[in-house]
Amino acid sequence: MSKEIISINGTISKPGEALISVMDRGFLYGDSVYEVTLTYNKIPFLLDEHLDRLYRSAKSIHMKFSFSREDLVNEIFKIVEKLTGDRLYIRIIVTRGIGEINLDPAASKTNNLVIIGRQLPVYPKSWYTEGVSLIVSDVLRNSKRSIDPNVKSGNYLNNVLAMAEAKEKGAFDAMMLNHKGNITEGTTSNIWIVEGSKFITPPLEAGLLGGITRKSLLILASKNGLEVSEENITPERLKKADECFLTSSTKEIVPIIKVDETLIGTGKPGAKTQNLHQIYKKFVMEYIS
Amino acid sequence: MSKEIISINGTISKPGEALISVMDRGFLYGDSVYEVTLTYNKIPFLLDEHLDRLYRSAKSIHMKFSFSREDLVNEIFKIVEKLTGDRLYIRIIVTRGIGEINLDPAASKTNNLVIIGRQLPVYPKSWYTEGVSLIVSDVLRNSKRSIDPNVKSGNYLNNVLAMAEAKEKGAFDAMMLNHKGNITEGTTSNIWIVEGSKFITPPLEAGLLGGITRKSLLILASKNGLEVSEENITPERLKKADECFLTSSTKEIVPIIKVDETLIGTGKPGAKTQNLHQIYKKFVMEYIS
Repeated sequence: MSKEIISINGTISKPGEALISVMDRGFLYGDSVYEVTLTYNKIPFLLDEHLDRLYRSAKSIHMKFSFSREDLVNEIFKIVEKLTGDRLYIRIIVTRGIGEINLDPAASKTNNLVIIGRQLPVYPKSWYTEGVSLIVSDVLRNSKRSIDPNVKSGNYLNNVLAMAEAKEKGAFDAMMLNHKGNITEGTTSNIWIVEGSKFITPPLEAGLLGGITRKSLLILASKNGLEVSEENITPERLKKADECFLTSSTKEIVPIIKVDETLIGTGKPGAKTQNLHQIYKKFVMEYIS
Repeated sequence: MSKEIISINGTISKPGEALISVMDRGFLYGDSVYEVTLTYNKIPFLLDEHLDRLYRSAKSIHMKFSFSREDLVNEIFKIVEKLTGDRLYIRIIVTRGIGEINLDPAASKTNNLVIIGRQLPVYPKSWYTEGVSLIVSDVLRNSKRSIDPNVKSGNYLNNVLAMAEAKEKGAFDAMMLNHKGNITEGTTSNIWIVEGSKFITPPLEAGLLGGITRKSLLILASKNGLEVSEENITPERLKKADECFLTSSTKEIVPIIKVDETLIGTGKPGAKTQNLHQIYKKFVMEYIS
């Protein structure tokens, strides 16, 4: 049993020796797609949804996989079994592989598949009990017409720049706007607001990654009689919201209490946010049992 | 003497063993900057200009180098000396280094420096004597407000997608438009047109990489009494041009004879294009002597 396992094309690397060719297009151009999934009680959570998205990301950039989905699933389970702990972080990276230095994707024929498995970090309780703060970044989210943010790829410099701005200003994360001035998403999360009794998140058309947790919540909220809606959200609307939170597979639901210099609602995690998190936790428990 | 040398942080790799950690941010996020320079008679051409641009790219993404410029130059010359041939291709890649999986650039402290040196491919003569064709891509160039195209970074998927479209349509390269519908650049080249006696290339404000050859030509053309101008170029204007060509450090000046289905000028390489190429070649000869 290990605390960390990295496998490259099915071969588990020795610690500190998980290496890839510098001629890999993932390294040269960020020409790769990836997913992050996690386990509860050692069960990969919504793995099918994550793999569906991985395949969709690949299709969007005309990338074909030189391995089967079955082999990929087996490889993931093999790594999960060998890892210590119930809460695991699994990052699946598929690059277009090694090829001559040439932007043409046809320069490469065989993918490289890298899986990084390790214990999921334990996040500070205060994130959930006290909430966190955001900034609205000066860095616009990539346009759908340039690189669709709905492709989870190895081109993450856009988000790195926004995150650098957030950290510089002491914030937890940065919200990125699209060219129309509407909020898209955080650097690795989706955003939600609560207005009255309504839960609102930006529509996919705003240019964002369709989060798995986001999708689950849209369905779960409806099922639990809560009003949900996908609507454009400007920074002004965000700051006037009664409650605000972000969602991600690994972090679940994190309350937002401040955006730039503006307190959200009472400046404390909202009751409706916390109620939704309980609904989500129940859904997770049902899934894994 | 070798045909190819790859050095990582000053250590020359054995053939086929130039490897980097999968935890390198260059691999995970494309969080790297790079330059391609070349040699004539084994002399690195305009190396200072390329290194200035490398440092400017790094600054734009808040990346600091954990090595000195002097060390970098020495390393480049060390590799050039060991390579066979006079015409060499030198790719210098600097990543933000290895760090915890976290978009925050502060997660990494020490860069990885990769230098790939090899013989410059001999380009087909027909490119220069018969010209090549372009398409205007459906993929828009990244917006300056998202990831500035004037940063030569490891995020090249935008260009990979445009190049894939070009190859699918049997073209040499793809021209990418900005959000205003003006031409920015090719996937690894700058674009120029000739109208009457005037040489025109899009301004940096259009959102493009300030090419070293582009800059040299702006100066050289003026010095040689040619009229040059930086102006926005729409696809319609491009297609009505008398002549058209693209420029890059490695390819120098390549005549364009067709854009989408439209022949440019006479459908043959233009005389003014070829004259400018002679001026450029003379400039190169003077530089290296």
